[in-house]
Amino acid sequence: MSSNIVLGANQYGKAEVRLVKITRDTDRHEIEDLNVTSQLRGDLEAIHTVGDNAHCVPTDTQKNTVYAFARDGVGAPEDFLLRLGKHFVDDFDWITGGRWAAQKYTWDRIVVDGNEHDHSFVRGGTETRTAVLTIDEGVPTMISGLEDLAVLKSTASEFHGFPVDKYTTLAETRDRILATSVTARWCYNTTDLAFDDVFADVRRILLEVFATKYSLGLQHSLYAMGEAVLQAHPEIDEIRFSMPNLHHFLVDLTPFDLDNPGEVFYAADRPYGLIEAAVRRDDAPDSAAAWAGVAGFC
Amino acid sequence: MSSNIVLGANQYGKAEVRLVKITRDTDRHEIEDLNVTSQLRGDLEAIHTVGDNAHCVPTDTQKNTVYAFARDGVGAPEDFLLRLGKHFVDDFDWITGGRWAAQKYTWDRIVVDGNEHDHSFVRGGTETRTAVLTIDEGVPTMISGLEDLAVLKSTASEFHGFPVDKYTTLAETRDRILATSVTARWCYNTTDLAFDDVFADVRRILLEVFATKYSLGLQHSLYAMGEAVLQAHPEIDEIRFSMPNLHHFLVDLTPFDLDNPGEVFYAADRPYGLIEAAVRRDDAPDSAAAWAGVAGFC
Amino acid sequence: MSSNIVLGANQYGKAEVRLVKITRDTDRHEIEDLNVTSQLRGDLEAIHTVGDNAHCVPTDTQKNTVYAFARDGVGAPEDFLLRLGKHFVDDFDWITGGRWAAQKYTWDRIVVDGNEHDHSFVRGGTETRTAVLTIDEGVPTMISGLEDLAVLKSTASEFHGFPVDKYTTLAETRDRILATSVTARWCYNTTDLAFDDVFADVRRILLEVFATKYSLGLQHSLYAMGEAVLQAHPEIDEIRFSMPNLHHFLVDLTPFDLDNPGEVFYAADRPYGLIEAAVRRDDAPDSAAAWAGVAGFC
Amino acid sequence: MSSNIVLGANQYGKAEVRLVKITRDTDRHEIEDLNVTSQLRGDLEAIHTVGDNAHCVPTDTQKNTVYAFARDGVGAPEDFLLRLGKHFVDDFDWITGGRWAAQKYTWDRIVVDGNEHDHSFVRGGTETRTAVLTIDEGVPTMISGLEDLAVLKSTASEFHGFPVDKYTTLAETRDRILATSVTARWCYNTTDLAFDDVFADVRRILLEVFATKYSLGLQHSLYAMGEAVLQAHPEIDEIRFSMPNLHHFLVDLTPFDLDNPGEVFYAADRPYGLIEAAVRRDDAPDSAAAWAGVAGFC
Repeated sequence: MSSNIVLGANQYGKAEVRLVKITRDTDRHEIEDLNVTSQLRGDLEAIHTVGDNAHCVPTDTQKNTVYAFARDGVGAPEDFLLRLGKHFVDDFDWITGGRWAAQKYTWDRIVVDGNEHDHSFVRGGTETRTAVLTIDEGVPTMISGLEDLAVLKSTASEFHGFPVDKYTTLAETRDRILATSVTARWCYNTTDLAFDDVFADVRRILLEVFATKYSLGLQHSLYAMGEAVLQAHPEIDEIRFSMPNLHHFLVDLTPFDLDNPGEVFYAADRPYGLIEAAVRRDDAPDSAAAWAGVAGFC
Repeated sequence: MSSNIVLGANQYGKAEVRLVKITRDTDRHEIEDLNVTSQLRGDLEAIHTVGDNAHCVPTDTQKNTVYAFARDGVGAPEDFLLRLGKHFVDDFDWITGGRWAAQKYTWDRIVVDGNEHDHSFVRGGTETRTAVLTIDEGVPTMISGLEDLAVLKSTASEFHGFPVDKYTTLAETRDRILATSVTARWCYNTTDLAFDDVFADVRRILLEVFATKYSLGLQHSLYAMGEAVLQAHPEIDEIRFSMPNLHHFLVDLTPFDLDNPGEVFYAADRPYGLIEAAVRRDDAPDSAAAWAGVAGFC
Repeated sequence: MSSNIVLGANQYGKAEVRLVKITRDTDRHEIEDLNVTSQLRGDLEAIHTVGDNAHCVPTDTQKNTVYAFARDGVGAPEDFLLRLGKHFVDDFDWITGGRWAAQKYTWDRIVVDGNEHDHSFVRGGTETRTAVLTIDEGVPTMISGLEDLAVLKSTASEFHGFPVDKYTTLAETRDRILATSVTARWCYNTTDLAFDDVFADVRRILLEVFATKYSLGLQHSLYAMGEAVLQAHPEIDEIRFSMPNLHHFLVDLTPFDLDNPGEVFYAADRPYGLIEAAVRRDDAPDSAAAWAGVAGFC
Repeated sequence: MSSNIVLGANQYGKAEVRLVKITRDTDRHEIEDLNVTSQLRGDLEAIHTVGDNAHCVPTDTQKNTVYAFARDGVGAPEDFLLRLGKHFVDDFDWITGGRWAAQKYTWDRIVVDGNEHDHSFVRGGTETRTAVLTIDEGVPTMISGLEDLAVLKSTASEFHGFPVDKYTTLAETRDRILATSVTARWCYNTTDLAFDDVFADVRRILLEVFATKYSLGLQHSLYAMGEAVLQAHPEIDEIRFSMPNLHHFLVDLTPFDLDNPGEVFYAADRPYGLIEAAVRRDDAPDSAAAWAGVAGFC
């Protein structure tokens, strides 16, 4: 019965608007380099069912808005997304929410003769800072994070005590390389924050705990990292991780009459372990709607 | 208060196990080429909180299981995932569910002198068939799909009637290229199906409706595609799409004293429109848990 | 002595101009989808040494020229490149040559009710057709090719008889999967050709010989493929291949009490074998200048 | 006449051997992370023409050799390649040369409480150090380099004075963003060097000159960068660059009643300018054979 077929959840917008903002009030320029996505939700049914676009704020308009808003400055990506989201929800009656997301890339100043240059930059590390704002029935929820933070420890990592079945061939180990590329996302219980400061501190904690926690498994490291973040930051209710276990296999050198006491490794691409978990406060309100569809943790 | 910090949702396993299965009972070989991911859920708390791995079925074991199970044949990826999922849930008390996913790549036989060769193959189209099985408290839910099905129509596509605000510069058009790369995922209300047949028919419908539906917008095409699938397949309760609007901009050739009546286009990379929507039966049971974390639709 | 430092070989232009051409004289549209790069050579020294741009035809102009020329039709990518190259060399005194390259993507018509649709298309296979025109001192040389033609044969492939040294652990095999992704490039001794026809036939030969040649090694297959192309096409003087040996390792299932007679394989990503060779006519003129810098074979 | 068809230039080996070496004589571990490719040349004709593998040192053996040699330490990638190349040429009569290449990835120590950690690391910048050793008739030539060094200057860059033809629409500019991703490769006239030190200094020079040279075009910057490297390093005979001009287009905000004095930019993906040039000593010996097939500059 086709009368029972209906439009379900939906959103639309412009993805990956590449925005570079130079602030040049003084000779010492600042650069902000973002990849912004805007998606709107609301009363969009007729667009889908009959092609009536009266409610279809063009994705091109969303892109224009990103660039126009950047003229007044960008600031923390979270603050920029809040401005964007508020604009769309306030200005269009039928837009009741949406999702606005940003990736931010790092640029460092080039050092010349020991001094940071005023207007020349070199790309920083491989990782990307992320922010996703969801507005649902007027309520904003902010999820910040980082992607592709590649870390490795060359010892202080064990893996043993696991169950053995007929398909188990893995040997236990008391010393191995532990390597991963951290994707972490954390949900704030407020949007009134110095987001840049909090980001820097969460990143610091993630690195320090990864480095110093003696690891009995990647899940063990993950939980300690998440717990430390929540302990230090009451404004964060939940942190989720998606962390591949990037296997480094000790190469068997015995055919060549060589030992290999944890020195020579083959870094494998695929398959990889995939560890995904949330660490949260047990009294936090449900935020499933904000997490739905946020890549990174499943 | 750290006593309130708890482990939230979590799963772990082995991702991207690359499996190629040759069936060679006769001289006419068959090839199946899959990328399989297995992730387990259940009582995994101590693994995270104290590094006690007694419940940690190694990801390496999960990989071995994939290969061992393939010895008996693969078949439809959905059926292979059902075998895998049942095994882990049945064999380990503390495993109550999980997610098992597969991508399947297409190989065509090489044609020699007009005949399909027995054991030589060439990779087929760019798109990938997908399947994701979630088992939650013993209940399996299957979501099948396809990724990266790139389609384009060079006419029979309009876009106009949209709202105009101060940030709108887009002109209306009565004839444009419509191009997208379809990611579609559909949720079955049963796991007792001839999955290969249904997949082939859904793919056929998606292509035919994209081709023949006169489009007033990408959402309009999307909805018609989803509606047609649900009308033809009562075993499907919901279909979700994530479809980029891959812009093809008409090049302005007037500076060169040339007209351009829909002939010469610049195919842009970024930004792109991003259209995401579900089409569903209004009486379908809630399947949010099965969709959570499935990439493609947000 | 800085007076001895000079500008060496150089070229510049616009890379990856994405061009989609729709031919719509009738209701049955045609699509041509190319990625075009234009690079100029000549008297460009002052541009580099003192920033005098009087000889610097802007890369933006080169891009415009690609689009303007497409207004008159594209045709075989080789013919399109010949038109472009001739234009730049003829119109600018100081431009004595350059390189013009194209990738062409395949689109098939969507089939609706058994009939090919007039204006709706689906992307074809994963491989890309390529063409590189070099003009050197007025002399054009055309190198055509294809990239990423993934092929696999599940038997009729051996590897044995190789030398053994202290670092050898590989076992001989009389039956293995042979898989590669062919990059081939061939150099014509004329530019007056029905390029589309020759391309189709070379592609056919490459596939047929890969399929039917009993292989004693990937080099052995490669040489037979090249030899067959040269035998069939006197207008081709040389063909070069870069072919990864994409390893498919038989999985050891004995720990699970299973045999594995060539049925279950692990498809590895890295490392891979890399086989590169040219097959040529011994009396062909030297074409090193045309090959220099053409990716694919080293 | 098939008798005239012969094998041309060829080489083969194992590509992308991922090697991670931990040096752990003390508690302060060192990490070296490389991607190594080994390819052999010599009397390899029968391998191709008749499938006789008596001269085919397996690619698997080449991989094993990489790992075995790493047991004794890696050091500068150039020195490691020299050891590898010498081994193959010395140990196998019919191997007269080859190419050995490496990419090296950067890891920084994680900082904990202000101190660099002993055995925990985070991936450094996005760029990769490269080395390619060619041995031709016993003569080694070393080409070192770097890839993907992304740099940007937000002012001190002009582009004007270019020729105008009927396809020119570009406006002149006296102030623009200049951004590129440097691939540079330089050829040494010796292999007896402190390669790590030279690499660090060349990288420093490239960054400093890019930052401080007032630019009249990307070619102008490129030449200055190359000239400075050659002036400072007599052991380098030639340096080649492949540098995309990564366009940052000033967004037209006038439809929104906003000015845009060099503040808001759209960072485009494709097309991009592509600038390739060599800077060399005019009395340097010909090194074309070593450059042939080295990706980066054409």
